[in-house]
Amino acid sequence: MNKPMTITEKILAAHAGLDYVEPGQLINARVDIALGNDITAPIAIKEFRQAGALKVYDPERVVLVADHFAPNKDIPSAIQCQTLRRFAQEQKLRHYYDGGEMGVEHALLPEKGIVGPGDLVIGADSHTCTYGGLGAFATGVGSTDLAATMITGESWFKVPETMLFIFTGQLPQWVGGKDLILFLIGQIGVDGALYNAMEFTGEVVARLPMSDRLTMCNMAIEAGAKNGIIAPDDITREYVANRALRAVTFFASDPGANYHSVREYDVSGMEPQIAFPHLPENTHPLSQVGAVPIDQAVIGSCTNGRLEDMRLAAQVLKGRKVARGVRLIIIPATPWIYRQCLKEGLFEIFLDAGAVISPPTCGPCLGGHMGVLGPGETAIATTNRNFVGRMGHPESKLYLANPAVTAASAVAGRIVGPQAL
Amino acid sequence: MNKPMTITEKILAAHAGLDYVEPGQLINARVDIALGNDITAPIAIKEFRQAGALKVYDPERVVLVADHFAPNKDIPSAIQCQTLRRFAQEQKLRHYYDGGEMGVEHALLPEKGIVGPGDLVIGADSHTCTYGGLGAFATGVGSTDLAATMITGESWFKVPETMLFIFTGQLPQWVGGKDLILFLIGQIGVDGALYNAMEFTGEVVARLPMSDRLTMCNMAIEAGAKNGIIAPDDITREYVANRALRAVTFFASDPGANYHSVREYDVSGMEPQIAFPHLPENTHPLSQVGAVPIDQAVIGSCTNGRLEDMRLAAQVLKGRKVARGVRLIIIPATPWIYRQCLKEGLFEIFLDAGAVISPPTCGPCLGGHMGVLGPGETAIATTNRNFVGRMGHPESKLYLANPAVTAASAVAGRIVGPQAL
Repeated sequence: MNKPMTITEKILAAHAGLDYVEPGQLINARVDIALGNDITAPIAIKEFRQAGALKVYDPERVVLVADHFAPNKDIPSAIQCQTLRRFAQEQKLRHYYDGGEMGVEHALLPEKGIVGPGDLVIGADSHTCTYGGLGAFATGVGSTDLAATMITGESWFKVPETMLFIFTGQLPQWVGGKDLILFLIGQIGVDGALYNAMEFTGEVVARLPMSDRLTMCNMAIEAGAKNGIIAPDDITREYVANRALRAVTFFASDPGANYHSVREYDVSGMEPQIAFPHLPENTHPLSQVGAVPIDQAVIGSCTNGRLEDMRLAAQVLKGRKVARGVRLIIIPATPWIYRQCLKEGLFEIFLDAGAVISPPTCGPCLGGHMGVLGPGETAIATTNRNFVGRMGHPESKLYLANPAVTAASAVAGRIVGPQAL
Repeated sequence: MNKPMTITEKILAAHAGLDYVEPGQLINARVDIALGNDITAPIAIKEFRQAGALKVYDPERVVLVADHFAPNKDIPSAIQCQTLRRFAQEQKLRHYYDGGEMGVEHALLPEKGIVGPGDLVIGADSHTCTYGGLGAFATGVGSTDLAATMITGESWFKVPETMLFIFTGQLPQWVGGKDLILFLIGQIGVDGALYNAMEFTGEVVARLPMSDRLTMCNMAIEAGAKNGIIAPDDITREYVANRALRAVTFFASDPGANYHSVREYDVSGMEPQIAFPHLPENTHPLSQVGAVPIDQAVIGSCTNGRLEDMRLAAQVLKGRKVARGVRLIIIPATPWIYRQCLKEGLFEIFLDAGAVISPPTCGPCLGGHMGVLGPGETAIATTNRNFVGRMGHPESKLYLANPAVTAASAVAGRIVGPQAL
């Protein structure tokens, strides 16, 4: 009988064709999905060519999404998208997303069932760890690593140690997955999980909807983690039921599995969390924020651009107006989410409030386009990083929050929660 | 009794406090509205400061619209918008449009009744001539001229000669104002009306809805004209009835007015007109286009981004899909148009067809953002200019057309009219 393993170890072992792996071990593993975007894939494609490769290992499993600067913001981004488009045509890739089919990669792949429980996924994008919310092992890699996997379908990994985070209690209204992960990063710091797996569990996580699970795992990288992961359960089963394009496997950590560390938090009475400039670890509970006037609010991104986030924002914005002088930019993350917002009447609420609705794009999250900040400007956003200059000018400031707080702040013109309106 | 004058001469005379003006005369005239955008106003504001000015001549009459690169596409555009925003606050400008209130300037000003019949309007944007559709004298100026007017409320003009264009007959289905003006530019060339006024009249123009009149006058500059103009009538009266913020004056050319030239066209049986790269004068009737595959189609801009244009596009797109490999970008020109598209169910049609819907912006028309072309790409657009590199890379190609033809081409994947679908 095998020694007990964590879910992360079990997925890695299964993909390496091994019965057992342990932290620190170097393994060569089969990759289910290899992902690139309009920033990283052009470099990977160049490496692919330089290596003399002619065919990707599987045209069903190499996925390209032109989401960062599209619709093309300038000539260089047009050329980047062209590179993806031509490669996708040449290689007959099943999953190439562009134009009206394009969505933010980490929202699009789970939604379309391209990634699922038990998968091993690499992506040349740091937030690839999002898919841990489905019970997959997913991690960001460099463009060169992506190129190698595009050719071979495999990749080398050092098995990470797993940190276990147990959340107990009852989350108050307006507090969700974004607050849990911001709180955690505040506790352990932006390098607090360096190269480790972050496994989230406990009664609070068991009740979290898939959107919040994806948000939590999405930001594991902001604590330096190799991956974030939540064991799949009935909520996962329901989510993947009509989506998964391939067979799924539900892994779970064994009793007695070996952890780097175990932390337990009772989150009853937790406040919404706000990450102050210029690090996601500069987290403060909402009541301690003080007076922070804002110029812009952004609701979107691979972290919080899902339908549930849009509904939360709409709940707060309904019948209210964005404060004079504040730009509120709302970016549904995928065409399906966009369409659902339309169908559910959320767009009327957003427009009546005075928001700008953007087509799906990563856009301002990385200072790409659709709301880049000028010098001295302050924004609040549902995005994932608030490094110096992340949303624009090096002298701008960015606060991270959940969608309800971001919407409420747009209405108040300063950082507040919905209950202050 | 005065000598007879054209409508252009009469508006100029009235604003110069003169009973009579004649072509070639230099006059100093009172300016009703002075307009700047996020490209031109920052320069004008700098000149304003350098001149030592403290106050604009009238905070109701200096209008700033941040429409070209907003929501900000990058740090320089963020700084440009900041310059406008701060100036607007400092000068307490009534008409400053930004964020969720921002629309494409030449669609926004008529819609909001900021400009109206009988006005004299200058704008630091070449398509300021749009407002001639309302029976105003409106012309593009440089940023320095705008600065001077912002201070004094006046500007110098050389009274232009007027060219009269009479359209008779009956326009076929799918042929409208855009085709008339493209046809005309094809006839007289891009310098065919250099510094002249283009006055449009005849039974065809009398039946044209305001949206098409604005489209025609919008492109007068593409023939080199100082202004385009259509005498106001009952259609104008109806359009301005619940809009005009100030008193309006309906001027009309006097019988016996002196014209530079008079041209008459029977447009019965006219085909949709397509302007080939790289000049708006390279106009061909649709039947002579041949096989032109496209990569992108854009429906929007100050030329054809109005509600009527959106309805035409929807009529063509309903129940149809954009061709594989073609990006269709639809940009309602103002928040009101956007809201109306939503209300009328046009967005469902656009999304079902696979289009991307952009918030209001000039965007790709000038290669700004939201759909910049890469090398070797071909696009069709409802915009106004197809100079080399106008929509992006110098090796891209742009064809100009009306909204119905542009929509049909997106569906077919090559340039065709709705009747070919």
